[in-house]
Amino acid sequence: MAPASLILSRRDLEFLLHEWLDVSSLTSRERFAEHSRETFDAVLELGETIATEHFAPHNKKADANEPHVGADGKVVLVPEVATALKVFVDAGLLAGQMDESLGGLQLPNVVSKAVQMWFHAANVGSTIYPFLTMANANLVVAHGSEDQVRRYVTPMLAGEATGTMCLSEPGAGSSLADITTRAELQDDGTYRVTGTKMWISGGDHELTPNIVHLVLAKIPDGPAGVKGISLFLVPKVVVGPDGTLGERNDVALVGLNHKMGYRGGTNTLLNFGEGAHTPGGRAGAVAELLGQPHQGLAYMFHMMNEARVGVGLGATALGYTGYLKSLDYARTRTQGRLPSDKDPSSPPVAIIEHADVRRMLLAQKSYVEGGLALGLYCSLLVDEQDTAPEPADRERAALLLDVLTPIAKSWPSQWCLEANSLAIQVHGGYGYTRDYDVEQHYRDNRLNPIHEGTHGIHGLDLLGRKVTMRGGAGLTLLLDTVEATVRRASAAGGELAELGAQLHAVCERIGKTTATVLGAGDPDVSLANATVYLEAVGHAVVAWMWLEQLLAANGKDGAFYDGKRHAGRFFYRWELPRTGAQLDLLDSLDTTLLDTDTAWF
Amino acid sequence: MAPASLILSRRDLEFLLHEWLDVSSLTSRERFAEHSRETFDAVLELGETIATEHFAPHNKKADANEPHVGADGKVVLVPEVATALKVFVDAGLLAGQMDESLGGLQLPNVVSKAVQMWFHAANVGSTIYPFLTMANANLVVAHGSEDQVRRYVTPMLAGEATGTMCLSEPGAGSSLADITTRAELQDDGTYRVTGTKMWISGGDHELTPNIVHLVLAKIPDGPAGVKGISLFLVPKVVVGPDGTLGERNDVALVGLNHKMGYRGGTNTLLNFGEGAHTPGGRAGAVAELLGQPHQGLAYMFHMMNEARVGVGLGATALGYTGYLKSLDYARTRTQGRLPSDKDPSSPPVAIIEHADVRRMLLAQKSYVEGGLALGLYCSLLVDEQDTAPEPADRERAALLLDVLTPIAKSWPSQWCLEANSLAIQVHGGYGYTRDYDVEQHYRDNRLNPIHEGTHGIHGLDLLGRKVTMRGGAGLTLLLDTVEATVRRASAAGGELAELGAQLHAVCERIGKTTATVLGAGDPDVSLANATVYLEAVGHAVVAWMWLEQLLAANGKDGAFYDGKRHAGRFFYRWELPRTGAQLDLLDSLDTTLLDTDTAWF
Repeated sequence: MAPASLILSRRDLEFLLHEWLDVSSLTSRERFAEHSRETFDAVLELGETIATEHFAPHNKKADANEPHVGADGKVVLVPEVATALKVFVDAGLLAGQMDESLGGLQLPNVVSKAVQMWFHAANVGSTIYPFLTMANANLVVAHGSEDQVRRYVTPMLAGEATGTMCLSEPGAGSSLADITTRAELQDDGTYRVTGTKMWISGGDHELTPNIVHLVLAKIPDGPAGVKGISLFLVPKVVVGPDGTLGERNDVALVGLNHKMGYRGGTNTLLNFGEGAHTPGGRAGAVAELLGQPHQGLAYMFHMMNEARVGVGLGATALGYTGYLKSLDYARTRTQGRLPSDKDPSSPPVAIIEHADVRRMLLAQKSYVEGGLALGLYCSLLVDEQDTAPEPADRERAALLLDVLTPIAKSWPSQWCLEANSLAIQVHGGYGYTRDYDVEQHYRDNRLNPIHEGTHGIHGLDLLGRKVTMRGGAGLTLLLDTVEATVRRASAAGGELAELGAQLHAVCERIGKTTATVLGAGDPDVSLANATVYLEAVGHAVVAWMWLEQLLAANGKDGAFYDGKRHAGRFFYRWELPRTGAQLDLLDSLDTTLLDTDTAWF
Repeated sequence: MAPASLILSRRDLEFLLHEWLDVSSLTSRERFAEHSRETFDAVLELGETIATEHFAPHNKKADANEPHVGADGKVVLVPEVATALKVFVDAGLLAGQMDESLGGLQLPNVVSKAVQMWFHAANVGSTIYPFLTMANANLVVAHGSEDQVRRYVTPMLAGEATGTMCLSEPGAGSSLADITTRAELQDDGTYRVTGTKMWISGGDHELTPNIVHLVLAKIPDGPAGVKGISLFLVPKVVVGPDGTLGERNDVALVGLNHKMGYRGGTNTLLNFGEGAHTPGGRAGAVAELLGQPHQGLAYMFHMMNEARVGVGLGATALGYTGYLKSLDYARTRTQGRLPSDKDPSSPPVAIIEHADVRRMLLAQKSYVEGGLALGLYCSLLVDEQDTAPEPADRERAALLLDVLTPIAKSWPSQWCLEANSLAIQVHGGYGYTRDYDVEQHYRDNRLNPIHEGTHGIHGLDLLGRKVTMRGGAGLTLLLDTVEATVRRASAAGGELAELGAQLHAVCERIGKTTATVLGAGDPDVSLANATVYLEAVGHAVVAWMWLEQLLAANGKDGAFYDGKRHAGRFFYRWELPRTGAQLDLLDSLDTTLLDTDTAWF
């Protein structure tokens, strides 16, 4: 048997996908009829192999050798990135979820996301090129014309172009309503785009002959705010009607962002239409409207749930690999003696024997396996929303996904970052050095509470939008779904019933607290402590995910299942009780934040 | 008026030192009789000026240009470090607490530590050279012979040598009992030391002609464990009887550690007596015993409380400067609108207007000002222990300091690191880039829960040693001292009385919980959850520090005092309730950690 990977646990993925989520049952649906457990497992193994052989090996090297702009003005990456991207594309993984007619594998989203976990865990910096290309291509397929798919998506799938998402601007990050990039209609039906976009991952490089930017911009005289935003295809090199590359478009690299982590991936400030080039002899970057005018943000939101769940899964992947590495270290490093051993001449023990090291390992295990369960559960909801046979099931899945998305994004971003901090702590001083991997995971993971909506934004999204929409149907559905799990736990009896009762009590409180908070009569008061709400509901949701896992493990013997039971137990004893003080604070309609005079700081 | 510093708050230091701790009253003691409020303030201002002008400016540069070994085998630093060290030494700050007879300023410890805060906050990497030299010199003065003081301390005070502390070894970090470095007595009364020391800050460089290492080693046939450890002076260059430098000693740089943060300061692996040099034609590094044999750890512990409080103050300083910088950013950066404003054409607000940004600022303020109060309080206890007129007061201060030290070290290391994470979050994506300072503070601060005893070790120290010693006198004294504050708050009435009652209830629970935990009847069970105990007591202690500050601010008008009241209020409403779930867990004598089978991971 091959040695267990320190990137991710194949055994845990098998448990979650097959023993819990029963993803093979998806093959009864027409879209996945060509698949079987064997094809799912084969693509998972393919992902593991490529991530292990082509992404993990240069993770540290790419971190230590950031992208830079060479003398010729071109972006220089370590050469391993190009190879990794090529292997990924050649394996067909870029089109994993696409239709067979486009050369895709028609994989379920949940399987595709599980495959991607290996790459997130192996090397987040290098994943940005294929992963953003996938997101871009899926959006063009969903909303573009046949012609646009042929001219822009086909080259991406062939490894001749990569894709980006250009949303933020220097003055508009969380607040997309305030973007100022403009798109002016031309006589030939194309547009010319002018503006500056910030935080563009993969925004410039020489990996492929072209880069296809998806750019949010406003068409003059459109509606104010987010309702006036449209989405445009803006290639780095203009693409002719027959798909051949033409003139250099007016997309210019202003600079590379130098970050604490995620250093291997380029992150750029780009100018569009500022005159660095003049395609066709005229000003502005050549652009094509994707879909209808003023629908840009709607299209983006179409993929936003998936993208946000993806951020949570990425955070979880970093937490997971850090956990496995600190576990490996704790098993082999010896130091100190147990409190009951007063003999200084007795040999030191492996540090995994120390209670506090076990605390740090159990906490990590409960965070990363809980986060992974949540991310895969939400990924399956995407499949349910898209392919469930009954329309009512699709609608139910879409609603539940809407409610869970801010949690699936934020909870792992918070707690799997904490897992990485614990992984450093298990390593002691060594974990603080770049000789080990865990400090990089911690630096990389610190991005996740910031991008794709900050932690605070997701609190507002959950409490101010998801919980209130459709007269509160989202929260009701969530709590009902949790209660169904509680009933199964209750029927199972024993410890499962006890944990279920504990979860039931917390969820009952959440229902009451939500009513109290939303009944405050002032939106500023209702939403003042939305982040606390997000964190409390998040812990309850992950406790639910643990109860689901324990039910799937129930009656099964062996260290793996015992480990699940113990980590779940830990989460209920050590973590879930955190919600008490949070719900107390929310119940009090605390206005400490609002009452602050800014002169007091 | 000069613009407010973003390094540290002079106003807050004045409040804590003068309005709260009344440090000027120390001048009634003989040792400090030459001093006055004016001399204290002058040295504080001197520290601020030097830190601002000579340490802060190269903080980022030194981080980006780590020490490296040049072609000649010598360690290369950015040149600003040498200038900064020279200015610090020339100002006499190295001898701040030393006797006038040695050229010292005879400052109280609390004033000296307040001065040092400016340097911690300005540039932790460059502080290691002067700060470790001070610690080293103070130890030699305390335990060395007159001859050793003359030959080793005098050059340090003159800027001709720096000092280090060599405790850890590659296989012995937390467990000093297991060090293997040996010291063999020679015919002439000197020793020859052989072994390898890890994590030695300032272990090699060219800043000064000599480096004086204080090395823990075992003399053969001594007692086992920590009782057989002695302390040795091992200079990089052998020092003759007249103080002149002689042969190169056998201290060799094996390598530099490359860390996540604290990058500006060298951190080294050193070989002693491994044959790189042969002083006097013989093997082993020339060493002199400091004080008596087998007393090495006792001497180290003599300064350990101070060093550990210093780590907490260093963590606080990084948290403080990050707070000030994120506050400055939040006042000027505009983005988004309040929930009650539904008009997308209204102008964006400064982000300090958003409730969640206020949460992050108030949390930071409550952590860093609470941590600073705790660190200065403990620093004053050092003065009390050393110079209080009544022996009973000295004893009382020493005992209270013993109990508080694990908290003063660990609490800021945990929560001011969290403050730095919040400072990043306030900055959004910009905070994740190296264009701003806060990501470096976060990386730098991550060391503090690791060095000078890990977080877990301090839990064991508090619950397993400090709380139980002298029949529990330490905890009783701590709780009594808190109760005295509670009584003053109760007498003050109003909100102060309410907060006092809340603190009283938590402290009463801590007393009972401590008895429950220590009564478990099995040391492994009693200490299994010691980290949770450390964190719960830590929050109670900082709540006490806030009540003390609010009493000092009571009856005073103005934004500064209102800010103190509001941050204290925040701590009691948002932070102190965290202890509930922690004390519940401790009361249950939870054995989840002990019951873990390591095969379950």
